[in-house]
Amino acid sequence: MLNEEKWKNFLDNDQFARHVGIELLEMSPGRAKAKMEIKSHHLNSVGIVHGAALFALADLVFAMASNSHGNIALAINANISYFQAAEAGTLIATGQEISFSPRLANYKIDITNERDELIATFQGMVYRKREHN
Amino acid sequence: MLNEEKWKNFLDNDQFARHVGIELLEMSPGRAKAKMEIKSHHLNSVGIVHGAALFALADLVFAMASNSHGNIALAINANISYFQAAEAGTLIATGQEISFSPRLANYKIDITNERDELIATFQGMVYRKREHN
Amino acid sequence: MLNEEKWKNFLDNDQFARHVGIELLEMSPGRAKAKMEIKSHHLNSVGIVHGAALFALADLVFAMASNSHGNIALAINANISYFQAAEAGTLIATGQEISFSPRLANYKIDITNERDELIATFQGMVYRKREHN
Amino acid sequence: MLNEEKWKNFLDNDQFARHVGIELLEMSPGRAKAKMEIKSHHLNSVGIVHGAALFALADLVFAMASNSHGNIALAINANISYFQAAEAGTLIATGQEISFSPRLANYKIDITNERDELIATFQGMVYRKREHN
Repeated sequence: MLNEEKWKNFLDNDQFARHVGIELLEMSPGRAKAKMEIKSHHLNSVGIVHGAALFALADLVFAMASNSHGNIALAINANISYFQAAEAGTLIATGQEISFSPRLANYKIDITNERDELIATFQGMVYRKREHN
Repeated sequence: MLNEEKWKNFLDNDQFARHVGIELLEMSPGRAKAKMEIKSHHLNSVGIVHGAALFALADLVFAMASNSHGNIALAINANISYFQAAEAGTLIATGQEISFSPRLANYKIDITNERDELIATFQGMVYRKREHN
Repeated sequence: MLNEEKWKNFLDNDQFARHVGIELLEMSPGRAKAKMEIKSHHLNSVGIVHGAALFALADLVFAMASNSHGNIALAINANISYFQAAEAGTLIATGQEISFSPRLANYKIDITNERDELIATFQGMVYRKREHN
Repeated sequence: MLNEEKWKNFLDNDQFARHVGIELLEMSPGRAKAKMEIKSHHLNSVGIVHGAALFALADLVFAMASNSHGNIALAINANISYFQAAEAGTLIATGQEISFSPRLANYKIDITNERDELIATFQGMVYRKREHN
């Protein structure tokens, strides 16, 4: 598993997550949690949080949870369903591993708003080239 | 259908697409095309274009193609499959409507690199509340 | 909501589920549970349960849970991820509503084997034309 | 690649496809085509072709196209979107490889009715354990 220094380093190198403004809150083997404070640059043409911003929030949790075991995991598929619009406040994404094999693993991430309403759900699959590194 | 002024306005209001650095190239009823020049803020922890940046590129095409008919279309689901890593150069996303009914419609967007290799494919579904606006 | 007579009738009319050999175990608003005893006609070319048979099992739960409110729900999208092969015994699919609005709703169905291992997970979305019937 | 005898054998062993009543029409490397004549056992509770029967039709094409290279390919994910109901006649599913690497490959299958209208689209991903067999 990644030790704290390594995952901080891993996270610091994620320039896109930083650019979007996503903050990691927790991380443990197969799990992660992040938040995004909604700012104007997250909005789409109709003034609600952009689907791709929601995706980016879930995707950081997906990347951290899937890379928590210490060998590089590459995303091969992701699916997001949107249930409710978000306009303001802070969004939280919480994710966990739902299946694991040395090469393939799956993760489910839920995004909730400050009233704990489900905004979107995300499922992602990764592939690991080498079993150890 | 949206006239040119309206869709330019629609696009200008998409703050997230601007923040990510995506540029619309073409738009016609049910179709759109956009590009993203890869910059450092698009990269992930392992130095390749972030899955969420690829999603954002496809998502702009999805938004423009699905809103090209003139009434607001809200994304309800999107699925992306990643085939190959992208590291530098310009990525192009090309999308088209694959099904249409007044309430529900589906779009398929392909992302290619400068060698015209398929980097990722995206499929998205929208819902329209009102048939006219 | 459907009363017991109506949902039994609804189920009896599902000729494909009967043909495949799926049995409904439980049903309540937004939820359902079904089983499939693995028989030779469920197998694929490599002797494990066919992906489409697993899909059919999850799909019955999806149909019953989404139609439990009493107005006809039509499937518009479904996604299935396979985690582990199944060869013999009885499979159980358990599903619940994860989002609900009058027109659109989403359901998540898990398929487990007799050792309660997760075989596959399914997510489906429905559309309802009329709010009441 | 599978020779004709081997893929006929592979197909004959697909007991679920036979049980559902799906017939392979064509097969070549990375491609396949199949048909399903709609019969009463394909229908759901509201008298249209069952989503899981449509899935089974697409899935046979997916299995044949992905196994056309001669080493066993296991499905890890599939996504189906339904566009239009089908009630009678013959449905055709046509599929092709949209990405290929030794371990992972993706396929897209379209289902059309006799008027060549798009009924559903399916995308599937496989994993191959060994590169040769």
